Amino acid sequence: MENFQLSLPTQLIFGAGVVKNHLSTLLKDKQHVLLVYGGGSIHKNGLYQLVTQTLEAAHIQFTPFQGIQPNPRVETVNAAITCAREQMCDFVLAIGGGSVIDAAKLIAVGIDYPHNAWDIVLGKHTPTSAIPIGVILTLAATGSETNSGSVITNWTTQEKRGWGSPLALPVFALLDPSNTISVPSNHTLYGIVDIMSHLFEQYFRAHPDAVSNPYQEALIEATLRQVIQTAPLVMKDLTNYSARETLMICGTYALNGVLRIGSTGDWASHQIEHALSACFDIPHGAGLAIVFPHWFDYVLHADPMKNAPLIAKMAVEVFQVTPQHTTLETALAGVHALREFWASLGAPSTMQDISIDITPKMEELIEKTLLGRSTIGNFQQLDSNALKIIFQSLA
Amino acid sequence: MENFQLSLPTQLIFGAGVVKNHLSTLLKDKQHVLLVYGGGSIHKNGLYQLVTQTLEAAHIQFTPFQGIQPNPRVETVNAAITCAREQMCDFVLAIGGGSVIDAAKLIAVGIDYPHNAWDIVLGKHTPTSAIPIGVILTLAATGSETNSGSVITNWTTQEKRGWGSPLALPVFALLDPSNTISVPSNHTLYGIVDIMSHLFEQYFRAHPDAVSNPYQEALIEATLRQVIQTAPLVMKDLTNYSARETLMICGTYALNGVLRIGSTGDWASHQIEHALSACFDIPHGAGLAIVFPHWFDYVLHADPMKNAPLIAKMAVEVFQVTPQHTTLETALAGVHALREFWASLGAPSTMQDISIDITPKMEELIEKTLLGRSTIGNFQQLDSNALKIIFQSLA
Repeated sequence: MENFQLSLPTQLIFGAGVVKNHLSTLLKDKQHVLLVYGGGSIHKNGLYQLVTQTLEAAHIQFTPFQGIQPNPRVETVNAAITCAREQMCDFVLAIGGGSVIDAAKLIAVGIDYPHNAWDIVLGKHTPTSAIPIGVILTLAATGSETNSGSVITNWTTQEKRGWGSPLALPVFALLDPSNTISVPSNHTLYGIVDIMSHLFEQYFRAHPDAVSNPYQEALIEATLRQVIQTAPLVMKDLTNYSARETLMICGTYALNGVLRIGSTGDWASHQIEHALSACFDIPHGAGLAIVFPHWFDYVLHADPMKNAPLIAKMAVEVFQVTPQHTTLETALAGVHALREFWASLGAPSTMQDISIDITPKMEELIEKTLLGRSTIGNFQQLDSNALKIIFQSLA
Repeated sequence: MENFQLSLPTQLIFGAGVVKNHLSTLLKDKQHVLLVYGGGSIHKNGLYQLVTQTLEAAHIQFTPFQGIQPNPRVETVNAAITCAREQMCDFVLAIGGGSVIDAAKLIAVGIDYPHNAWDIVLGKHTPTSAIPIGVILTLAATGSETNSGSVITNWTTQEKRGWGSPLALPVFALLDPSNTISVPSNHTLYGIVDIMSHLFEQYFRAHPDAVSNPYQEALIEATLRQVIQTAPLVMKDLTNYSARETLMICGTYALNGVLRIGSTGDWASHQIEHALSACFDIPHGAGLAIVFPHWFDYVLHADPMKNAPLIAKMAVEVFQVTPQHTTLETALAGVHALREFWASLGAPSTMQDISIDITPKMEELIEKTLLGRSTIGNFQQLDSNALKIIFQSLA
């Protein structure tokens, strides 16, 4: 394996009742908390009431900031920063999924920067101070609750970009599977696709033929099998607590660093999806469901000798594919099994499935994927020609 | 699963060359480092020279303290504390395996306590201050490098006890598999047994029939399979770097908390082994190799209906046992496979194998296992009668 570092300082607290049991203790000594959340589902499921009553009982002031979008926009973040500054907030509490958490991170590091927070996303300004962040997770998907990364969209320039800072690492993350029970079917599905994508993106890494990493492969295969076993149970019964529980812990482990173990993964599929979301504002998980099988097709086509063996291993270990006559055939059977699995859960497989015609924006999509780089990807490098083939295939 | 908390703040740095590349940066600002190590193998393999030359080049003072025993003794720890106090050390660097790390932890929290550090192990004194600890790991076994637990032996009273403190958590752990290459065959084997035991002890938990935890089981099964696959490669060629690498990361993951995931494990086997080590000063891993199969025998005998299903699952998933006519038979076949596996690596299976007669000390062993409790264990509670049966069977 490659050399690596790992630490996981966020205090992860998992299980039924953890918000009620831990929130006020975690926030003692805070003066004024900015509550950041999305469209308002937490008003309907009782979580908003639980949080605000807990804060009131602990005599902690707070200001709610509602309206973080899926694909969270920097314009909204800037407004939240202004609000936090005016209220002299000393803590940001994100109540939501990846979008809300990612927005909270930029709010926290942007509070001492009196300009457009987009500068931080672009790397033009490196924050040196922040207020601390806590998370109450409501969606099994992102992993953002225990890492320092964030993805923000600039709707003016139609860009969706990742950034990160050690200052953006949440100090605590409260994960109560009950808080995911009311997530509707489509967003539950998108979360499942996001989790599986994060696992693929760490499994399909730079130089797997030269740098062995059997334990990392084994842990990721085990996690993928677990998600594949659990997802249909959740989709069949959205109130299945124990399945929601398993999905939630898998989502966190899929991107908290413990499954990386010295692998430089391949995040090209996420980057391709970011371009789609930036141009068409589609849900991230829907985009990934469309992108990933076509990415597999392309990398198998581009270099079957190099790329088929690890995809074939995934096919056998994760999808229980019977080894075929050739390694390439086994790999292709694995990609087919992935397609069938996501389709069985109701995921789209082309942009046409979600009634979007990307053809007029082909060049822009390629440009927004590359963002100035000549290639992306590590398992398989993709240049603009490769991206064109992938975008055409998923259209 | 049960509610749980997880954080992993120790900075784990893994790979070839990490001591040379990171040690001086990690210790900058330190005035005087106590170097704690064992019998002196690090003088032979070059690690002592590398560490001291690195510290000298960085103008950091240090005092070596050699002679931490396997089953580290509180008398030695007290001497090291006196030394650290005299030299006004502001950092303890443990260079070694579990024994050295566990001793370093008690040194670090004992430095401000001017009495016998055994009081801390007994819980009679709760430390409120400590100097920080760093680790250079030289043995794949303990997991102690990234957790806050420690086990210390009092040779005067013949007690071996576990204790822990948040202050005892190492701030960094440098894991270079090269530093395990010179570990001889027997200690390599004991490390393998220790790792597998930690995995069993988290897998066989309280109420597995009532509280499902499929992801935890899947991750532990994957880790056990990995160790079982890797161990023969290491034992066949002690210089096999990539196998040493896999074993080292498995050892850390086996006890850094990430595989626990809300399970109250069953540590009875470790407690039984502690009594054996306290009375006869045998290597911890040798003791575990003797204890564990007999613990399995006993718990299957004591309550086959309750205990066979999870042991049978382990048998099938980890040892690839073909399911037998009954669940109990499958479970027994799994225990047989474990015995065969450890024997194939050269582990002892009874105390007679290591030429020790425990019969005269039977009552003392039971007393030292229970340490005042009426029962130990969660998967299966063990009282003094149960312990007597186990000790008689492993004699």
